[in-house]
Amino acid sequence: MIWTVYLSGEIHTDWREQIIQQCAERELPVEFTSAVTNHERSDAAGDCLGPEALPFWRDHKSAKVNGIRTQTLLETCDIAVVRFGDKYKQWNAAFDAGFCAAMGKPYITLHDEDLVHPLKEVDAAAMAWAKSVDQVVDVLAYVTSSR
Amino acid sequence: MIWTVYLSGEIHTDWREQIIQQCAERELPVEFTSAVTNHERSDAAGDCLGPEALPFWRDHKSAKVNGIRTQTLLETCDIAVVRFGDKYKQWNAAFDAGFCAAMGKPYITLHDEDLVHPLKEVDAAAMAWAKSVDQVVDVLAYVTSSR
Amino acid sequence: MIWTVYLSGEIHTDWREQIIQQCAERELPVEFTSAVTNHERSDAAGDCLGPEALPFWRDHKSAKVNGIRTQTLLETCDIAVVRFGDKYKQWNAAFDAGFCAAMGKPYITLHDEDLVHPLKEVDAAAMAWAKSVDQVVDVLAYVTSSR
Amino acid sequence: MIWTVYLSGEIHTDWREQIIQQCAERELPVEFTSAVTNHERSDAAGDCLGPEALPFWRDHKSAKVNGIRTQTLLETCDIAVVRFGDKYKQWNAAFDAGFCAAMGKPYITLHDEDLVHPLKEVDAAAMAWAKSVDQVVDVLAYVTSSR
Amino acid sequence: MIWTVYLSGEIHTDWREQIIQQCAERELPVEFTSAVTNHERSDAAGDCLGPEALPFWRDHKSAKVNGIRTQTLLETCDIAVVRFGDKYKQWNAAFDAGFCAAMGKPYITLHDEDLVHPLKEVDAAAMAWAKSVDQVVDVLAYVTSSR
Amino acid sequence: MIWTVYLSGEIHTDWREQIIQQCAERELPVEFTSAVTNHERSDAAGDCLGPEALPFWRDHKSAKVNGIRTQTLLETCDIAVVRFGDKYKQWNAAFDAGFCAAMGKPYITLHDEDLVHPLKEVDAAAMAWAKSVDQVVDVLAYVTSSR
Amino acid sequence: MIWTVYLSGEIHTDWREQIIQQCAERELPVEFTSAVTNHERSDAAGDCLGPEALPFWRDHKSAKVNGIRTQTLLETCDIAVVRFGDKYKQWNAAFDAGFCAAMGKPYITLHDEDLVHPLKEVDAAAMAWAKSVDQVVDVLAYVTSSR
Amino acid sequence: MIWTVYLSGEIHTDWREQIIQQCAERELPVEFTSAVTNHERSDAAGDCLGPEALPFWRDHKSAKVNGIRTQTLLETCDIAVVRFGDKYKQWNAAFDAGFCAAMGKPYITLHDEDLVHPLKEVDAAAMAWAKSVDQVVDVLAYVTSSR
Repeated sequence: MIWTVYLSGEIHTDWREQIIQQCAERELPVEFTSAVTNHERSDAAGDCLGPEALPFWRDHKSAKVNGIRTQTLLETCDIAVVRFGDKYKQWNAAFDAGFCAAMGKPYITLHDEDLVHPLKEVDAAAMAWAKSVDQVVDVLAYVTSSR
Repeated sequence: MIWTVYLSGEIHTDWREQIIQQCAERELPVEFTSAVTNHERSDAAGDCLGPEALPFWRDHKSAKVNGIRTQTLLETCDIAVVRFGDKYKQWNAAFDAGFCAAMGKPYITLHDEDLVHPLKEVDAAAMAWAKSVDQVVDVLAYVTSSR
Repeated sequence: MIWTVYLSGEIHTDWREQIIQQCAERELPVEFTSAVTNHERSDAAGDCLGPEALPFWRDHKSAKVNGIRTQTLLETCDIAVVRFGDKYKQWNAAFDAGFCAAMGKPYITLHDEDLVHPLKEVDAAAMAWAKSVDQVVDVLAYVTSSR
Repeated sequence: MIWTVYLSGEIHTDWREQIIQQCAERELPVEFTSAVTNHERSDAAGDCLGPEALPFWRDHKSAKVNGIRTQTLLETCDIAVVRFGDKYKQWNAAFDAGFCAAMGKPYITLHDEDLVHPLKEVDAAAMAWAKSVDQVVDVLAYVTSSR
Repeated sequence: MIWTVYLSGEIHTDWREQIIQQCAERELPVEFTSAVTNHERSDAAGDCLGPEALPFWRDHKSAKVNGIRTQTLLETCDIAVVRFGDKYKQWNAAFDAGFCAAMGKPYITLHDEDLVHPLKEVDAAAMAWAKSVDQVVDVLAYVTSSR
Repeated sequence: MIWTVYLSGEIHTDWREQIIQQCAERELPVEFTSAVTNHERSDAAGDCLGPEALPFWRDHKSAKVNGIRTQTLLETCDIAVVRFGDKYKQWNAAFDAGFCAAMGKPYITLHDEDLVHPLKEVDAAAMAWAKSVDQVVDVLAYVTSSR
Repeated sequence: MIWTVYLSGEIHTDWREQIIQQCAERELPVEFTSAVTNHERSDAAGDCLGPEALPFWRDHKSAKVNGIRTQTLLETCDIAVVRFGDKYKQWNAAFDAGFCAAMGKPYITLHDEDLVHPLKEVDAAAMAWAKSVDQVVDVLAYVTSSR
Repeated sequence: MIWTVYLSGEIHTDWREQIIQQCAERELPVEFTSAVTNHERSDAAGDCLGPEALPFWRDHKSAKVNGIRTQTLLETCDIAVVRFGDKYKQWNAAFDAGFCAAMGKPYITLHDEDLVHPLKEVDAAAMAWAKSVDQVVDVLAYVTSSR
């Protein structure tokens, strides 16, 4: 069995690449999916449907086009990893966590210790809290091990 | 039909009381539910189960006890209103919105215009974005009108 | 048991009032729900959330506000009656029928004989096709009879 | 991942072929499904089960046989594209959209600007509104891109 | 709690009345629902929608009208009792049992010992097999007892 | 797409083999599943778990072992064909039809004209009624055609 | 809102009565359901359906009759409390916990500290672990408080 | 079709290996999944996320990490085999059985005759009770046979 892991949340550091690389090095039976993580492309996802004068509607159109992808990939993944960084609001990461929780889809949070209090509801519904990429990969290695 | 409206999110201003009062004045057929909104009581929700040395586990226990209430009330409400203020991370509000989205439960966001961009995913899955308590009450009045 | 009947579709004739009145005269154990059927109010449902320059977004906002009501009432009704008149496109009526079909919610179509061919998919998933208000009421009387 | 895209609605122009060809030229990871789009064959789908004297029952039988195919393919697709042309009622397209909405399946509408008002409920539950085949293909290219 | 018990199957003896009377005498907290059990009325359920020349379509229309009632009542009952007599095919009783099984709704079969072999699949998915009305009432009394 | 077709019901004639052979000859993209159709093996399915003194419990055990297979295959098929012959009660066939109906799984009934009346509820929830193996294969050919 | 609390598990001490009494004294808006807790009556639940020679089948019949009650009450409760005592295997308590977990129904475990290790899977899916009746009542008081 | 069989429960004897080997020898179309069955590794599953001072939280973290694997594999298996040995509490096995029951997933119990009474609820919801590995393999051979 190949496990599909959805990588959600922060897009300003290379945590996704680190996880993917470490899993490859350890030859884990996992494949990865995620939202489009290029910030400019993501914000412009709906521009192909025509320009918008108001920022709200431009955001709205782009978020819905992104939603076609993210909702489908969340529903079909086996595990989600939800990353919260120290910058920006990252409400979409918490939104993804809530989406997983309602579906009964297991997810792992990845964030520093100083975010423990504001993330307590998100962590409480998670199956694990990891403080580093290494810990995430260790969990994936264990969960997907052959025996 | 009495509509049950769940009020989620920010707990530092009196937006809940304003909505409840205005709906009462307009005699709307609505009743309200919410998480326990007393900050200290909410953070201490798990303390009755015994003290914890580590902040993470105290938060964890309290968040799960709160989750008994919030998950049940979210599942049984007809409409959720999710409020984002200008302070704090309020990841639990975004989490509730994601939970509603996965259940197909309609929700209304309530936030200022300067939060439009970071909340675009949350707004895109919402049925309405309100900028003021008055607008929320107007939507509730319309949705629950007899004819 | 009181049966809840959702009345969907055409809003330019008084078929809803006729059904409600006949059911009252026959003292059937039914109550009725529907979308807001005042055309102007319905088109303006989202206006309380602020004006829109573009017709698409005004329609979009209003349709979503209406959706809070219609989706909830469709999900909680026992039977839907979906009326197609001879004017206008009435795509929202067909949309409601498809929504019911996917939920396994029984619905009755109400339309003239000359619409049989274009409505064949909608009728095929319906539990009954009625050609008149009298026939709808007869079906409701039978379905909700005490023995 | 190969994405399955269901093409629903109007059968009198070659919009399906255009989408399929453009996606092939751009080597998108998509495959397509749809109802049987040959009008005569579709209307005659139930004739193999024996002739019917009344048009209603002929249509009924054919629509149900078509439903075996369309319901299954709608349930198993990842994305639906629902096309509304300027002729005919096309209630089956709106029916498919409602079916998707109730399942939480993302769909894209494809129609001209002059249909915005009558399609507002269908568009409000859609993830995107496209005005041209090119726009549909752009959205599919974005949604299914590798990163 | 009042338990709702759906009485399905054979309509040529008074087993329903016996169960209802015995439960009333024992003051059990139960209420009963069922299909329309008057044979002629049931076969004619669709006649109000217009006459049919062919027996198949008359049966089809009536069965669908009956289905509005039976499907709704099966979905909302707490327990079903499915009765098989010694005459007729009673495929609708087995159909109701299969419907309950797929929904995870508990049902009790009621039939004589000589039907054990042909009903083995239906009994295997049941929660109890009763050979008499008295046994059904005993089970209902036990299941609905206050402590 | 390969369509999976579950063949349910009568086991005393070779209707299954006829369907399978004709589909093979016409090179339809279908594969078939079914219960174990060897009568003696099916009745003895539970014997490996130890002998039973009472016929009821032997039947019960065998029916549950058969249920592991039949429930799983019904849930995973795309289409079911449910055959009623002129002998025996065949309540398990009607049970399978009800199971499909509750899941929203499309099924085709296969039976002679003289069974129309007792099977009216089963036919009313079916997507098609076929009177011959040829008709079943024609429907499968149409439904699974490439365009 | 009146919250329904299902009390599952150990039947040899009066923990249920203690919880019910304390909740009554504190006037909590809760009502309670449970399996039949009289051991002899529970073991004999199926005896009304006729005697069985083998202990396995007597147990089987009684357990299924009990299951009509317990499955229904578990599905309709808001919260379950699952009690593990120091005697007996109490596998039915763990079974109820797993049933709740799969439904997403929140439950609280109630057991002494020395059972922590063998119950770790059951506790991990619970929303709270209580060591005493007082703690359970405290959690219920908090969860069901008016604000 | 390859059937996926989840092996749940007791980890102190080699019953899993016996089943796997016998199925291989008989060339059954089955593949197997299970929890991590190395006791020490399983208890330490969460240790990679950091040490815990309290046994409860160490168990809690490990059980949740194990839950990522077990919940996913239970949801995706076709059949579960749940083994109860004569030592230890094995509440996780009963928990898995309850989880399967709520999902409608068929499972087979494997235990000695002296556990019949305490396991009556677990057995009552099972599709078969086997007393030996040979019996389990016989059932799997029958259920997965080609015809």
